[in-house]
Amino acid sequence: MHKIISFYINLVNGSLNEKTVKKEPANLYDPIDYTLSLGGKRIRPALLMLANNLFDGDDKMALNSALAIEVFHNFTLLHDDIMDEAPLRRGEPSVYKKWNTNVAILSGDVMLMQSIQLLSKKNHPNLHRVLSIFNATAIQVCEGQQYDMDFENSTTVSIDDYLKMIELKTAVLLAASLKIGAVISNASSDNAHHIYEFGKNLGIAFQLMDDILDLYGNSKKVGKRIGGDVIVNKKTYLLLKAQELATGKSKKDLEFCLSSSVLDDDTKVEKVKTIFNSLNIKKLAVEEMNLFYNTAISHLDSIDANESKKRVFEQFAKGLMNREN
Amino acid sequence: MHKIISFYINLVNGSLNEKTVKKEPANLYDPIDYTLSLGGKRIRPALLMLANNLFDGDDKMALNSALAIEVFHNFTLLHDDIMDEAPLRRGEPSVYKKWNTNVAILSGDVMLMQSIQLLSKKNHPNLHRVLSIFNATAIQVCEGQQYDMDFENSTTVSIDDYLKMIELKTAVLLAASLKIGAVISNASSDNAHHIYEFGKNLGIAFQLMDDILDLYGNSKKVGKRIGGDVIVNKKTYLLLKAQELATGKSKKDLEFCLSSSVLDDDTKVEKVKTIFNSLNIKKLAVEEMNLFYNTAISHLDSIDANESKKRVFEQFAKGLMNREN
Repeated sequence: MHKIISFYINLVNGSLNEKTVKKEPANLYDPIDYTLSLGGKRIRPALLMLANNLFDGDDKMALNSALAIEVFHNFTLLHDDIMDEAPLRRGEPSVYKKWNTNVAILSGDVMLMQSIQLLSKKNHPNLHRVLSIFNATAIQVCEGQQYDMDFENSTTVSIDDYLKMIELKTAVLLAASLKIGAVISNASSDNAHHIYEFGKNLGIAFQLMDDILDLYGNSKKVGKRIGGDVIVNKKTYLLLKAQELATGKSKKDLEFCLSSSVLDDDTKVEKVKTIFNSLNIKKLAVEEMNLFYNTAISHLDSIDANESKKRVFEQFAKGLMNREN
Repeated sequence: MHKIISFYINLVNGSLNEKTVKKEPANLYDPIDYTLSLGGKRIRPALLMLANNLFDGDDKMALNSALAIEVFHNFTLLHDDIMDEAPLRRGEPSVYKKWNTNVAILSGDVMLMQSIQLLSKKNHPNLHRVLSIFNATAIQVCEGQQYDMDFENSTTVSIDDYLKMIELKTAVLLAASLKIGAVISNASSDNAHHIYEFGKNLGIAFQLMDDILDLYGNSKKVGKRIGGDVIVNKKTYLLLKAQELATGKSKKDLEFCLSSSVLDDDTKVEKVKTIFNSLNIKKLAVEEMNLFYNTAISHLDSIDANESKKRVFEQFAKGLMNREN
């Protein structure tokens, strides 16, 4: 991680941890403090600060918006954990488990409002533009979550549907963070567009890498068991691509693996991997991922700004995609 | 209802019903259309328009903010219905019953974002001020809902706690609607303050009247069974005041009524009413209500604006409190 990104991560963490007056009612505000204290990489706010810096913006002008993005992101986690029935968040009980669903709903609502409050704390000439980007993005993130839930019960999800879903659910928030930083620093529309597209395409590439690593990664490096997505029939890029391409025996075999209740987990992962390999799924997924990654880099190249500052973004992108070497 | 208020109610309903492009995903947007189609009195947005008109503002400048208030109000109903496990809303299934809890959470989230989007659709010199009022109010409404839920399990709710709760949960949104209308029309800080306080105090008075009518109203006029709050031990102003004042036998009798499982509903209502009457609760509640109502009117009087326009607000307040005659 480049030292300027670490600097911004520390700045964001410092601001989030600033002790404020104990707020009442406690059942509303304690879950918010708890959620923000669980940590997280703070990548989005750091990139917002970095984008603002790229166009020679003042850190002070951007910090509240950076915090807004982080609070918003944590709001989505709080409500997503209820919807996904996820008992843990960063290794600790999620809010709806530690308190209850009502507390998680209402505390989440307040976090969403706090993010708008942070975003519009200071009046500045670009406030209206920043709000437009943020509002549109926030709604897209909810659309992505709804598509993701809809897909669980759907048998007709296409690759295009899937790419649209991951774009909405995860990539646009990364993209908007960068664009808001750019807009606060008064960047041109062209530059704001290119940094948005850089973030969006990088976010999609990252999600595809995540899908690939589930089955083809090194379990030690990935930090979770190999084939976790396969075991629960998760509709990843790999599975959807295989369903698109499989015919004859491989189609039958795949259907058997997805519906069988007799296969143990290891055998299922092994069998599905064999089918994927016969269909060249890994290669196709890597090609798709590279397409998005290269599109991201070409948008970065198109930005009219200091070249050495731009290289920090490229270095970050490489690091994110494990492409250091 | 004065004809200008009816005019604004129709304007708001017309705008809410404008057919827009069918939005996807349907599971996210259908519940929003459904919620807004259930109706409602549209009092808050109409009062926002009226306050804007009071200071000679342009209707067109205020309409999006009026819609924002109505969408926000409906967002709170959507999430409150989950938390309160309310199966019906305006006589129809509530969203979490018609769809499910996840849909109700996420559609509500989008409505909250849509309200911010409506509020900040147009750029104008007072946008920052409007957002400050709205954000602070939105958070207060959530605080009010949390206090209300906390009170259900508390045995130490004071009259002051209760007044603060109804102020936050219902009165501040009415107050903010009026203030936002005033601010959009460039009203002075003094005038914006007075119209806010008019709305806040009127809102509290209205809620106290609601408490009084539950037990002392005409069941035909109120439209629900008399003593509904008493039957479920709801912590209204009447009950809290009685608990504050009761001593000796009346204290024992009241405690018996609240905890007994042998009393049938009618007997319970009758017994509690007798205790309340012995403590002069109705008179005390009416006095408290009048205090807030008169404070509201004195703030209205302090507003520096066209007197005949101001009288429309007074007439509205009288109508709201059934004081036509």
